[in-house]
Amino acid sequence: MGSAIGRLFRVTTFGESHGAAIGGIVEGCPPGIALDLDAIQAELVRRRPGGRLSSPRKERDEVEILSGVFEGKTLGTAIGLLIRNKDADPRAYAPFADRYRPSHADYTYEARYGRRDWRGGGRASARETAVRVAAGAIARQVLAALAGIEIVGWVEQVGGIVADVSADTVQRDAVEASEVRCPDPVRSAEMVTLIEDVRREKDTVGGIVRCVARGVPAGLGAPVFDKLEADLAKACMSIPAAKGFSSGTGFAAAAMRGSQHNDPFISGADGPQTSTNHSGGIQGGISNGMPVLISVAFKPVATIFTAQQTVTTSGEAALIQPRGRHDPCVVARAVPIVEAAVAMTLCDHILRRPRFVEAAHQHKP
Amino acid sequence: MGSAIGRLFRVTTFGESHGAAIGGIVEGCPPGIALDLDAIQAELVRRRPGGRLSSPRKERDEVEILSGVFEGKTLGTAIGLLIRNKDADPRAYAPFADRYRPSHADYTYEARYGRRDWRGGGRASARETAVRVAAGAIARQVLAALAGIEIVGWVEQVGGIVADVSADTVQRDAVEASEVRCPDPVRSAEMVTLIEDVRREKDTVGGIVRCVARGVPAGLGAPVFDKLEADLAKACMSIPAAKGFSSGTGFAAAAMRGSQHNDPFISGADGPQTSTNHSGGIQGGISNGMPVLISVAFKPVATIFTAQQTVTTSGEAALIQPRGRHDPCVVARAVPIVEAAVAMTLCDHILRRPRFVEAAHQHKP
Amino acid sequence: MGSAIGRLFRVTTFGESHGAAIGGIVEGCPPGIALDLDAIQAELVRRRPGGRLSSPRKERDEVEILSGVFEGKTLGTAIGLLIRNKDADPRAYAPFADRYRPSHADYTYEARYGRRDWRGGGRASARETAVRVAAGAIARQVLAALAGIEIVGWVEQVGGIVADVSADTVQRDAVEASEVRCPDPVRSAEMVTLIEDVRREKDTVGGIVRCVARGVPAGLGAPVFDKLEADLAKACMSIPAAKGFSSGTGFAAAAMRGSQHNDPFISGADGPQTSTNHSGGIQGGISNGMPVLISVAFKPVATIFTAQQTVTTSGEAALIQPRGRHDPCVVARAVPIVEAAVAMTLCDHILRRPRFVEAAHQHKP
Amino acid sequence: MGSAIGRLFRVTTFGESHGAAIGGIVEGCPPGIALDLDAIQAELVRRRPGGRLSSPRKERDEVEILSGVFEGKTLGTAIGLLIRNKDADPRAYAPFADRYRPSHADYTYEARYGRRDWRGGGRASARETAVRVAAGAIARQVLAALAGIEIVGWVEQVGGIVADVSADTVQRDAVEASEVRCPDPVRSAEMVTLIEDVRREKDTVGGIVRCVARGVPAGLGAPVFDKLEADLAKACMSIPAAKGFSSGTGFAAAAMRGSQHNDPFISGADGPQTSTNHSGGIQGGISNGMPVLISVAFKPVATIFTAQQTVTTSGEAALIQPRGRHDPCVVARAVPIVEAAVAMTLCDHILRRPRFVEAAHQHKP
Repeated sequence: MGSAIGRLFRVTTFGESHGAAIGGIVEGCPPGIALDLDAIQAELVRRRPGGRLSSPRKERDEVEILSGVFEGKTLGTAIGLLIRNKDADPRAYAPFADRYRPSHADYTYEARYGRRDWRGGGRASARETAVRVAAGAIARQVLAALAGIEIVGWVEQVGGIVADVSADTVQRDAVEASEVRCPDPVRSAEMVTLIEDVRREKDTVGGIVRCVARGVPAGLGAPVFDKLEADLAKACMSIPAAKGFSSGTGFAAAAMRGSQHNDPFISGADGPQTSTNHSGGIQGGISNGMPVLISVAFKPVATIFTAQQTVTTSGEAALIQPRGRHDPCVVARAVPIVEAAVAMTLCDHILRRPRFVEAAHQHKP
Repeated sequence: MGSAIGRLFRVTTFGESHGAAIGGIVEGCPPGIALDLDAIQAELVRRRPGGRLSSPRKERDEVEILSGVFEGKTLGTAIGLLIRNKDADPRAYAPFADRYRPSHADYTYEARYGRRDWRGGGRASARETAVRVAAGAIARQVLAALAGIEIVGWVEQVGGIVADVSADTVQRDAVEASEVRCPDPVRSAEMVTLIEDVRREKDTVGGIVRCVARGVPAGLGAPVFDKLEADLAKACMSIPAAKGFSSGTGFAAAAMRGSQHNDPFISGADGPQTSTNHSGGIQGGISNGMPVLISVAFKPVATIFTAQQTVTTSGEAALIQPRGRHDPCVVARAVPIVEAAVAMTLCDHILRRPRFVEAAHQHKP
Repeated sequence: MGSAIGRLFRVTTFGESHGAAIGGIVEGCPPGIALDLDAIQAELVRRRPGGRLSSPRKERDEVEILSGVFEGKTLGTAIGLLIRNKDADPRAYAPFADRYRPSHADYTYEARYGRRDWRGGGRASARETAVRVAAGAIARQVLAALAGIEIVGWVEQVGGIVADVSADTVQRDAVEASEVRCPDPVRSAEMVTLIEDVRREKDTVGGIVRCVARGVPAGLGAPVFDKLEADLAKACMSIPAAKGFSSGTGFAAAAMRGSQHNDPFISGADGPQTSTNHSGGIQGGISNGMPVLISVAFKPVATIFTAQQTVTTSGEAALIQPRGRHDPCVVARAVPIVEAAVAMTLCDHILRRPRFVEAAHQHKP
Repeated sequence: MGSAIGRLFRVTTFGESHGAAIGGIVEGCPPGIALDLDAIQAELVRRRPGGRLSSPRKERDEVEILSGVFEGKTLGTAIGLLIRNKDADPRAYAPFADRYRPSHADYTYEARYGRRDWRGGGRASARETAVRVAAGAIARQVLAALAGIEIVGWVEQVGGIVADVSADTVQRDAVEASEVRCPDPVRSAEMVTLIEDVRREKDTVGGIVRCVARGVPAGLGAPVFDKLEADLAKACMSIPAAKGFSSGTGFAAAAMRGSQHNDPFISGADGPQTSTNHSGGIQGGISNGMPVLISVAFKPVATIFTAQQTVTTSGEAALIQPRGRHDPCVVARAVPIVEAAVAMTLCDHILRRPRFVEAAHQHKP
């Protein structure tokens, strides 16, 4: 329990950070979808470390599709995913086998399981998210094939610097053109400077990722507990370091009046639309046809390179000064992870709507 | 699908707002727990409408326990819950059978299912949350019996008014002493004034509920997708009108440095503790023994009593001016609902830890 | 856990035999189905005790539909079911509070939960199956509406008496015309005589129920673990007193050659058919369009009215001589229960096929 | 959906018969179990083809454990399993791309998904069961470590030849000493002769596997739908070619009287025992401490090497004469698969009993 998400589009993952491999199984992908394997690999490249601003760990993160695809199209059967760990190097972590890194999962995993893999966080490492990104890339292709949905994420905030980005028009090219995946060029430059400063100070900094899904048809979601917002929240809050989730106006809604916040309905070409989108495309837990818009807040990376107070596994006070390979700021790398979370969730819900799936079933070989 | 939550402590609900009854089934409650039925009913009373500041709907919300309890103690079998709708009065809603109330679930439910129960929102109504509150009250008693956990929620914000409350010391008595469940007396008074103003203006206003669980042992949670924060987020974001969820420092973490945000470990009487609690009691998705602290943001109630632009079910522009029975601000009533969400989630996770459950199994009759 | 079955058509039940009520929740029923409530009640009447050959317990078993239906049609939301226990009379069971009835669940439930409701078996009682029959009756109407599927069960064997019935042509009228639900008139009369003899001897006897589903379209089922036969087996083997399940040729297949057992394909009006049906309508876990045919073996009722050896709850040897209200043979009453198990399982699988569900979604009010 | 089984011990598999690899993920294995990897591989060797009586396909079936084990012991995290397909040779199957093999899954999978992998059955191939055997071998070690449970399966019947084996005393050595895994030497020799005859006739033959689990503590199982027998039935009936499942007396119970079938309780050293075991160790869906005893009937292998009538994918009548690599009788190879099904099911249920799991949690590194 705990290594899987979704009901109809279900993703189960395995793997420790410095073990032999990470991987997963995607269940529920409809048959007849022509999978673009290069596009899956491209998402992994977006997530992997690299560049001036991130960890020096060198992983090619090549994903192998082991099943579920035949003659270029999905079979409707389980898709096996495998990514070998190539640059595993647990030696840097040996000093931490007997002491808990502050604000990491070291102590809590040991409290939960009685033991832990101390090599780079083991199962708690964000390395596992590479599999989510691969599965999300499949989900994305399903969403595009079934309903023309497109998903764009970006960095909205790093430290105190907040970007100004239009969710209605932002394009992926603009996001990728920025070293920190912030499509507001002025704020992007400021963020780069801030991250470089933070790195120099051997510190880290948090941020916010925002993500929009456009082209989501009205009627995705489910009543009561499986509200679209609830499932998006679960998928996003299960990303390492996430501390907050919101949809539409989010926490700002608390200070608003109903007369401001309500989205009036107007007649649109394909049915009702709303003239504003404070709801973030979701009302009563179900999509209303407007862009679905969510935000995820990330705390600063817990691994900082200055000495901190901690205790050993036998309960004695100790100092700890991590070494190893880490990012001063993860939010740029978190963009494809958040997009994957949104894609997997939407895919899980679109598969509950027969009309969209039937199209896939009619794609005979 | 969609009417159930939890794995080991699983709650499934049914019922439309103006149908015959609402109710549910609680699976997984350990055997041998002496259930205090009055305490369950008391939680329902906390949630139900009443008082100057809320809807005039008069429901006694008497819950009947139909199974799973024998000679005053739980049997370990499914617990059936039933609450009859006594004051159902769908007539006020008839005018809305053919037009969509803005920012309600009317249009989206119809997009999802092809039809809807227009009587007061039907299944989308917050009336369903009465069942969650009853189930949460059971979860609360399980948590108290198994590990001495206590859960306290309160109103942190209404509109622009923000309270100052200590999560470490806040007591339920202080919460209940406030008409708006805000244990900061000065802010409480301001909130009451604001809500009365808002009501007079036929408008509504949003707010934030904060909730702490104290006495949570280290080691509750699960790896990867079923992180404690992720499951808390799902439970809370499935509450009607919730637009944001956060744990610990939440969105404020985005602007912090790692050196500020990290919680240093210190030796405590029962094992490691942290000297600060920015993590909100959860690290790597697993509890660390410190108070678990979360926030939920609620948008203003969608039903306002002024005319708004909308469209009819046949797509024509129309005006709508709701009548019916509604709250100008739901956050006070949302406090027991958020507490229930936290209780159900913690209960689901404590049942995954054998050591706590075994105690219950040893309570022979 | 353990009180629910199905994934897309999911039935959760609650209730002890002599508690206040039994009931359940049906999730996943598609919207727009015009439910015939009388037909649901009629199935409960078929299952309930009555007649010369069964227990004298007098339960009217009136089921109340509490939600999920609006203006005569399903809403797509959870359907709440409630059946009050009217003739509960636990006094007859008091002598067994401190000793275990042989081959009942008394000892095993106490081993599992540490305590038990000794009133008539509590949760282990077959009384719970009334809820399955109600849920199965809903499933049946969904199957009829979506794909014209019809389900007919009958008693194939009582003790050593084996009927001769054609699964291709057997009709429900012929089944109901027999006091023991055996549509072979000669064997039916012999079975009645046998059961009367057995009752006189204060003994009980086992039997076999056979069930056919006709009109099942090809393509229901799922790969690997959720094979149609596997899910049918689970649903049927969860009926109290079931000791065996088979599909098609069943255990007789063990003695056959491939050249005998294989079903040759021939061209049919609606696609491939098979000229024999040894497979019982299922190949590789998926329906092939031929009648789906299964059997369930039931052991003799454990409650016999002669003295038997047992032990007390404190481990001492004791004699036990049950009183109470019991059937000498349950197989006639098991027919609607097996039909319900088949209906729920097929419904769970037809909902995985978009093409059938889409029709329901297009039934606008 | 459909590629996973179990709730607390959950096994998900992937892989087509002639694809790149098969594999799976085991979730829920408790931490601190010292896994014997050689014993896992040994089970795969038992299942793989080889010997005079089985298919000539040469697969080494080497399983790689990719995660979840650290310093020789389980971590409590997901265990990734990988088995590369080495001797894949789809060419022999090319003639069947456009016609359906009788009593295989070819037609039904195409009816389900609109397309299929025709290479040796693709996902429908029994090759997938290698992963179940690996997962079952892990389950077995968990059961041995937590409660000393041992599982022994054997061939009870091939064609019309029925063995005489004592479930109370049969040992694995005696099973493995027989070429057909029948520990009755006389019947074993007869079975070998029969299978050789059948092979010469280019035909196949069915059989029955019986399996006992000894040392199962009382109290494993769950109420209502998740009865131990129901879950065993699902696991066993999801094995390719299974047509029947029974526990204890099985179908023979139908002809018995209650006075014969009931198992009297007697006082035992560790609590109540029964003097007979017609129940097969399960009463009311929960284990009673006696040996758990089940049977699974297998139809004859569908691939026979004589010409048969079929239709093409475009619906025309055609002859088919399979080539390829197949067994005349699978029941000997089915023994470890049935054992795995039993092991996985018992493991899923023992993890619901805190007292057994707690022991594992206390195995500190």
